[in-house]
Amino acid sequence: MSDLQKYIVGLVMYPGMTALDIVGPQTVLGALPNMRLHRIWKTLDPISTDDGMVIVPDTTFENCPPLDVVCVGGGLGQRAVVDDPQVLEFLRRQGSGAKFVTSVCGGSEFLAKAGLLQGYRSATHWTARKQLAELGVEVAAERVVIDRNRMSGGGVTAGIDFGLVLAAALCGEQTAKIVQLLLEYDPAPPFDAGSPEKAGLDLVNQALLYAEGTLNLKVN
Amino acid sequence: MSDLQKYIVGLVMYPGMTALDIVGPQTVLGALPNMRLHRIWKTLDPISTDDGMVIVPDTTFENCPPLDVVCVGGGLGQRAVVDDPQVLEFLRRQGSGAKFVTSVCGGSEFLAKAGLLQGYRSATHWTARKQLAELGVEVAAERVVIDRNRMSGGGVTAGIDFGLVLAAALCGEQTAKIVQLLLEYDPAPPFDAGSPEKAGLDLVNQALLYAEGTLNLKVN
Repeated sequence: MSDLQKYIVGLVMYPGMTALDIVGPQTVLGALPNMRLHRIWKTLDPISTDDGMVIVPDTTFENCPPLDVVCVGGGLGQRAVVDDPQVLEFLRRQGSGAKFVTSVCGGSEFLAKAGLLQGYRSATHWTARKQLAELGVEVAAERVVIDRNRMSGGGVTAGIDFGLVLAAALCGEQTAKIVQLLLEYDPAPPFDAGSPEKAGLDLVNQALLYAEGTLNLKVN
Repeated sequence: MSDLQKYIVGLVMYPGMTALDIVGPQTVLGALPNMRLHRIWKTLDPISTDDGMVIVPDTTFENCPPLDVVCVGGGLGQRAVVDDPQVLEFLRRQGSGAKFVTSVCGGSEFLAKAGLLQGYRSATHWTARKQLAELGVEVAAERVVIDRNRMSGGGVTAGIDFGLVLAAALCGEQTAKIVQLLLEYDPAPPFDAGSPEKAGLDLVNQALLYAEGTLNLKVN
């Protein structure tokens, strides 16, 4: 496998991110033989995810090499950093040269604010579709969306599907299938409530109230 | 929600664990209003997962309160710690009083080595079924298995399904559905290769070679 093209992948971190948004793609890409993963933030100080796990970045914006894949996720803390000029400048700089500019869940908002998604189709978390559209992005209610070199996953758990689609694009379908099998990605959700369409209006409204009340997520 | 029964959940960490095994359940349980999550290891020193992410535990074996739910995952590094007497003593001590004694993926082997699974049915990663059976456990090739107060998920990504089943058991079906919707768990695997049965013998054999060669996982 030593003659495989190597890819440098950057996973952007920040306080209040959703761990699974990043850990989904990380698990898939980390199982490929030719990826070098960087977990990137302004500093190497530990950051807390929105479910309370503490992760230590290994790369800063400043010392990050040119990325082949840049990926940013969403999270309850995203509102506090989504307009941060340092973050947006990093995304713009890396995005201009990357082979794939990608997001999972609300991470699409970062790319849009950096001017990287206008004129492209993108997925996002279902609660964030409206605000992404208001940023001039063509929002697609799909699990994984590819538009030229932009690739995006829908909400949280879509990062696994996204990761496998990206793995197939970078390393071929056969390797992606092997990784899917090794991750035993044969999902069996206990309920049929994973999308607003399947959940129905009542559950959607309950979920919005729950998000606002319990999770303090301001949904517009 | 303040009158809801509170649950204390312990997620056991160790060097070389698979992050997603733990982050799957963490993401579901962390979205519930009445869970207190602890990420537990011998010390508070940062640990590296088998895909290279550095996580900082927040609780040690010594200062961990009595747990209502104890959960342990698998990982490429598990062979180095699965016989560690301190780990097994911790699991035995917490397991004797916990409401649910649980595992995801190869984490079932820890529970079996601690004597907590003999006489029970349990799921595990498909490559680990044989060695779990050799420890006297009734191995079930199911995604999520409940046997009295033991609850287990299959390989890696099964931790999300497991988390939702556990959420329903602790907080009711309606809350679990809301969380499923907020995590947008409406999976769309790009290939139908997520289980050995679906993947077929050729891909299974390729995956075993890949695991042994690329991931250095000794499969027996």
